[in-house]
Amino acid sequence: MMDFSAVTQASERLAGIAHRTPVLTSRTADALTGAQLFFKCENFQRSGSFKFRGAYYALAQLSPAQRRAGVVSYSSGNHAQALSLAGQLQGVAVTVVMPHDAPAIKVAATRGYGAHIVGYDRFQESREAIAQRLVAERGLTLIPPYDHPDIIAGQGTSAAELFAAVGPLDVVLVCLGGGGLLAGSALAAAALAPNCRVVGVEPEAGNDGQQSLQRGEIVRIAVPQTLADGAMTPYLGEHNFAIIRQRVDSIVTVSDAALIAALRFFIERLKIVVEPTGCLAAAAAFTGAYPCAGQRVGVLISGGNIDPAQLAVLLAD
Amino acid sequence: MMDFSAVTQASERLAGIAHRTPVLTSRTADALTGAQLFFKCENFQRSGSFKFRGAYYALAQLSPAQRRAGVVSYSSGNHAQALSLAGQLQGVAVTVVMPHDAPAIKVAATRGYGAHIVGYDRFQESREAIAQRLVAERGLTLIPPYDHPDIIAGQGTSAAELFAAVGPLDVVLVCLGGGGLLAGSALAAAALAPNCRVVGVEPEAGNDGQQSLQRGEIVRIAVPQTLADGAMTPYLGEHNFAIIRQRVDSIVTVSDAALIAALRFFIERLKIVVEPTGCLAAAAAFTGAYPCAGQRVGVLISGGNIDPAQLAVLLAD
Repeated sequence: MMDFSAVTQASERLAGIAHRTPVLTSRTADALTGAQLFFKCENFQRSGSFKFRGAYYALAQLSPAQRRAGVVSYSSGNHAQALSLAGQLQGVAVTVVMPHDAPAIKVAATRGYGAHIVGYDRFQESREAIAQRLVAERGLTLIPPYDHPDIIAGQGTSAAELFAAVGPLDVVLVCLGGGGLLAGSALAAAALAPNCRVVGVEPEAGNDGQQSLQRGEIVRIAVPQTLADGAMTPYLGEHNFAIIRQRVDSIVTVSDAALIAALRFFIERLKIVVEPTGCLAAAAAFTGAYPCAGQRVGVLISGGNIDPAQLAVLLAD
Repeated sequence: MMDFSAVTQASERLAGIAHRTPVLTSRTADALTGAQLFFKCENFQRSGSFKFRGAYYALAQLSPAQRRAGVVSYSSGNHAQALSLAGQLQGVAVTVVMPHDAPAIKVAATRGYGAHIVGYDRFQESREAIAQRLVAERGLTLIPPYDHPDIIAGQGTSAAELFAAVGPLDVVLVCLGGGGLLAGSALAAAALAPNCRVVGVEPEAGNDGQQSLQRGEIVRIAVPQTLADGAMTPYLGEHNFAIIRQRVDSIVTVSDAALIAALRFFIERLKIVVEPTGCLAAAAAFTGAYPCAGQRVGVLISGGNIDPAQLAVLLAD
């Protein structure tokens, strides 16, 4: 079982490389919820999401031979961008297996960072199988998007920064897809804020995390159809679930309509761009899916990568 | 002639009340321009623009009798919101003369802060005349949007913070409407960064500031039709011009198309919402209207108040 020392090591390795992202507050959001909300803005992170933290740290842990051979991964987009940027910065060749329906802005950014992209159909093919074939045929090292101790350690550095910046919290709400950010946040909370509850938030359309926590084992579902493209994960990672089942208090769900309302709130009031997946945790606070009145609440905003055309549609509704 | 001590006094009065807004950087923007750009983000200021600084400070300088009687102003929107919030915080009744075509989000926010709104037609009526009538009939004190020493002093605190945060700059680019932010920035630069050039940026459609600086006297034009609704000012303020003609190096113009391109860049890359007027200074850097390659450049982003519906249209183009 991983402990907090892994997060501390990741923080040291990322110092001066990953952004120490700002924590924003909003009197209007506090008035709406009756809580005191602290928004940790990973949409301002390099590559546009928290994924840079884990990706950079995982590459930094490779042996010289592994770095020379290059790495492969699969991703709906943000891990792909993050790993590609990390590879560019560290001189490691990156191949990414991406679904054909990934947002155009994420595909373009990944290519822009110099990665090689291999497309697939996320409803027909297994991205893991395609990546494993590349590992076998080309000697690449697999850097999965969330089910990996170094990835989890890197993602935990965001919550660690949040606790350091704002002091005691009653609860931290965390966007949940495969569980990298949630497991990392749980590790950080266990060491730095043992009285702070850790709560995952996933889309209504795919509550595999909630089911898994209730049953005590990883539950697999069909690929969920949701606006939260970063949370279209059918099951949690194994390393992630080992931590989540021990240290996460509960997992709640929110609707796509709640994600749109939160996205619009961020545009209108905080003047920040948050992608739908990045709105999961905030939507739980705004809708009361997690009741937080009277509490000091950390809200992890996971990313801000959204196609302007898609944003236009969501704002015009 | 005002000097920097007025800005210092305003900074002291605003400490802990106005936000000390963040300064953002972007590797992509630097690569595009060949410069090192420092974006001072007044879109994160209270009420959504730099206008809060001057409005709050001006109200704080009133006598007890003036505060009891209340104040009146005219504004295309951001000064209205700012003054209304400042009045709410200081317990001063605020009346605002606003054009019928002001952005709905700005009218709603002004009303939300408890101000009384008097509408007018900006192409037919004089807002100054309407405000003066309210001064005469109701004993209100006029707090104009820019032509006032306390307003100028308050607006100068943003540039003062920028110089303190990032050190020496070769030039600071400032959005220009009536000249409050530009005059205040010029005062701050004169004291804190005497080697830093100060450059105003206004819409192509209304280059009265540029003409005024060239001729050495205030030039009046027809109300300009531009996407930059906060810069639809037909002439500079007198207090403002007295400072601008002494301490501003040049004034350049940018097109509405350049404002849209800058707005989209901020959404896509910096993940921040900037209103069209707030994009003026950045657009001058991005288009080369002010050539800044090789320089350290401060860019004042004046505000982020834009209707989501209008933003949707601009992003969908």
